[in-house]
Amino acid sequence: MTAVADPLIVRFAEIVGPAAVLTTPEDMAPHLEEPRGLFHGQARAVVRPATTDEAAAVVAACHEAGAPMVPQGGNTGLVGGNVPFEHGGEVVISTRRLNRVRALDPVNLTTTVEAGVVLADLQRAADEADCLFPVSLAAEGSCQIGGNIAANAGGTGVLRYGNMREQVLGLEVVLPDGRVWNGLRRLGKDNAGYALRHVFVGSEGTLGLITAATLRLYPRPVARATAFCGLDDLEKVTALLRHARAWSGDSVTAFELMARFGIEITHRHMPGCADPLEAPWPWYVLIELSSARPGAGEAGGVRDDLEGLLGAAFEDGLIADAVLAESLDQAEALWRLRELMSEAQGIEGGSIKHDVSLPVSSVPAFITRANAAVTAAMPGLRPCPFGHVGDGNIHYNLSQPEGMDKAAYLDHWDAMNRIVHDLVTEMDGSIAAEHGVGRLKVGELERLKAPVELEMMRSLKHALDPAGLFNPGKVVA
Amino acid sequence: MTAVADPLIVRFAEIVGPAAVLTTPEDMAPHLEEPRGLFHGQARAVVRPATTDEAAAVVAACHEAGAPMVPQGGNTGLVGGNVPFEHGGEVVISTRRLNRVRALDPVNLTTTVEAGVVLADLQRAADEADCLFPVSLAAEGSCQIGGNIAANAGGTGVLRYGNMREQVLGLEVVLPDGRVWNGLRRLGKDNAGYALRHVFVGSEGTLGLITAATLRLYPRPVARATAFCGLDDLEKVTALLRHARAWSGDSVTAFELMARFGIEITHRHMPGCADPLEAPWPWYVLIELSSARPGAGEAGGVRDDLEGLLGAAFEDGLIADAVLAESLDQAEALWRLRELMSEAQGIEGGSIKHDVSLPVSSVPAFITRANAAVTAAMPGLRPCPFGHVGDGNIHYNLSQPEGMDKAAYLDHWDAMNRIVHDLVTEMDGSIAAEHGVGRLKVGELERLKAPVELEMMRSLKHALDPAGLFNPGKVVA
Repeated sequence: MTAVADPLIVRFAEIVGPAAVLTTPEDMAPHLEEPRGLFHGQARAVVRPATTDEAAAVVAACHEAGAPMVPQGGNTGLVGGNVPFEHGGEVVISTRRLNRVRALDPVNLTTTVEAGVVLADLQRAADEADCLFPVSLAAEGSCQIGGNIAANAGGTGVLRYGNMREQVLGLEVVLPDGRVWNGLRRLGKDNAGYALRHVFVGSEGTLGLITAATLRLYPRPVARATAFCGLDDLEKVTALLRHARAWSGDSVTAFELMARFGIEITHRHMPGCADPLEAPWPWYVLIELSSARPGAGEAGGVRDDLEGLLGAAFEDGLIADAVLAESLDQAEALWRLRELMSEAQGIEGGSIKHDVSLPVSSVPAFITRANAAVTAAMPGLRPCPFGHVGDGNIHYNLSQPEGMDKAAYLDHWDAMNRIVHDLVTEMDGSIAAEHGVGRLKVGELERLKAPVELEMMRSLKHALDPAGLFNPGKVVA
Repeated sequence: MTAVADPLIVRFAEIVGPAAVLTTPEDMAPHLEEPRGLFHGQARAVVRPATTDEAAAVVAACHEAGAPMVPQGGNTGLVGGNVPFEHGGEVVISTRRLNRVRALDPVNLTTTVEAGVVLADLQRAADEADCLFPVSLAAEGSCQIGGNIAANAGGTGVLRYGNMREQVLGLEVVLPDGRVWNGLRRLGKDNAGYALRHVFVGSEGTLGLITAATLRLYPRPVARATAFCGLDDLEKVTALLRHARAWSGDSVTAFELMARFGIEITHRHMPGCADPLEAPWPWYVLIELSSARPGAGEAGGVRDDLEGLLGAAFEDGLIADAVLAESLDQAEALWRLRELMSEAQGIEGGSIKHDVSLPVSSVPAFITRANAAVTAAMPGLRPCPFGHVGDGNIHYNLSQPEGMDKAAYLDHWDAMNRIVHDLVTEMDGSIAAEHGVGRLKVGELERLKAPVELEMMRSLKHALDPAGLFNPGKVVA
């Protein structure tokens, strides 16, 4: 008996060429595994179109065959939105080969890039044109712009420049039936109809395949200054933020909170991570100022601003101690403490994670109440809150009690989520701040969002993807 | 025979009280007339709910009766989106009494206000809390926040702070069936589902009734500096913008272009408007820098920055002459030239208007080509382009030829629109930059937008307003 070829896969090969259609388990493997190992999917095929026309033809073929599709960029998402389910009936459409920078206009301060351009490559292209592309995050060496848009990526530059959403001026999208919407506007103002691009930003691949985008650029900062502060009281963090924004003329580009426990484990597990302050403090804040003002790197510039604001903060009792980076190397060493914290947590043992946001003014109360609730539920559990407190965004991660079995600990994932998410909801926060909903939080969204809002979301989904073929089961059930 | 009372009006009176239901022609008149006199509508009634609950009950009653509704704020819109049609079957829902500032949080830098709060009142409330609400436009003394959101208002602060859209963190909306969606988030990051608020921002009352919003605030600038420059060549305006942004560390808050003709008629018709420069120049730019950095009002601050950047621009031949305001009075006198230009045009005779945007780098070429096209079509016609060139937004207004009959001139409105909008479309611009589509541009949108985009807009409209009761015939036909 001869194996009958899957006609959809035959069609894909006609469209993109056989080398761009992956069907063996080995070839498909990197596209099926969620990066933290939470989900292990299967797929009918992985297709890699190289042009918008190819992408449109692939989607049209899937639409005709009734085959569900999972758009995938760098596969760095943390909520399972970018991997297929286990049933194996989905087609993964990888944007990896859609990787051209189509245009970069330093006068208009815009760039048009394809979905598969790696974020770090876009940052570099902007830099070479004396501009800044401000979105920056841990996965920037491998995540792709299309995924950043689909997830509305956040990161460390949001306080000053906004999320990925605020950078998106225009989109090119292959709609679920294979038609192409060319909405690649390069305009600062455009009220000619509904803001369709915003429906796709943050929709996590459930409404269509983003193939290209026009993004904002900014004048490139000429100087940065970085400091690491110890705080004796969590309550002081919001006053410190307000003080820093006022003192610096709103040039704070990063304001990152860390708990003592996080510094300890990063110091312990990560080579080259020293404790920057002499005495231990219960809380730490990493502050970065930057400025594009010529002369900002000289006397009277951002370094003096930072030194002045720290001095005044010390006098007012807002900070207990601080160190100011005297070189780029020192600044990078301070950032490493923040950036390697998540990895250090993995070495320390099991970690139950939450990506939540609160009104900035509620962050201290949230952390205090959440710490009390989770340690009451499991004595010995070690909270490791850290994150972009300037945006109200806390990675509220929970390290296992010492000596507990890791798997037994991780069995409490859903129960801990429930405790934390209930509190977040009570305090007007979001249970999905910058990582999205994906597959991981569909149930919690269903449980916690107002029915009217879930219904509005379903109406939008049905309006744009009536056959339900794009990333089914993600975001909205 | 006894007149039978309209049962819907009886119901309105039960909900909001009889004094808040207007039915006589005299009472309704201010709500039916488009401010430039382009449209004179009729209505079944004008209803003024004072709370969200009242508004929801009014909408539910209309929904049940199948009565179309026109949401209305300050009725300052310029495209007929906020007035009813002539047939008289629509109910105008005025947000005037929904006018409370519900909350203002200077730590979180957010405020929650009802739709009927007047823009200038919000600016004042923010100022009193040592904060800035950055949206500023000519109608700010009477326009309302709900209308600003529905129209995605622009104005003079967009270059630095973005449009109204960028200020909206959350919305409360009465949906077309009378249910209330409470989406009043106060979060810098929130990816828990689709960005529903962005569907309503800029939808011009066609998808529901906005009753309240949570908006961003900013640290208040401590200093401003204003200058008025003469240019000998339109081509230089984009290089000057780039120079100003780079020199000032991106602290340009306004960058407004004016043509000589506009300055001449403003000088002629508006009392107290002098020509600020000794010799005439074909083009002028008003530049404003501002900064929230303490000390920005002193030596080495924004005034010195502006003086330095003007000196360098003069040396490089980017500007031919300039005057720097030495006092707040002088700065206001310079702004008056820009702000009274539209009024001066009205005195000068008939004016055919366009509110268009282009990529910033294409603005000079657009103006040159458009001027050639419209004067070829009507010799003697006097173009008066002005506007927010930093956002690529030009109010491309055309004053009638001297001596021509005004009404005869205005009969060419549609033909001139067609010439200008065709060019805008060819050059990747928008025919509705900051004033929206309303009733005025529905036909042009239909003519110029890609069919796939119109279809997407209709799908969204149908998904959220399946009975088509909200502002029918506006934005999308």
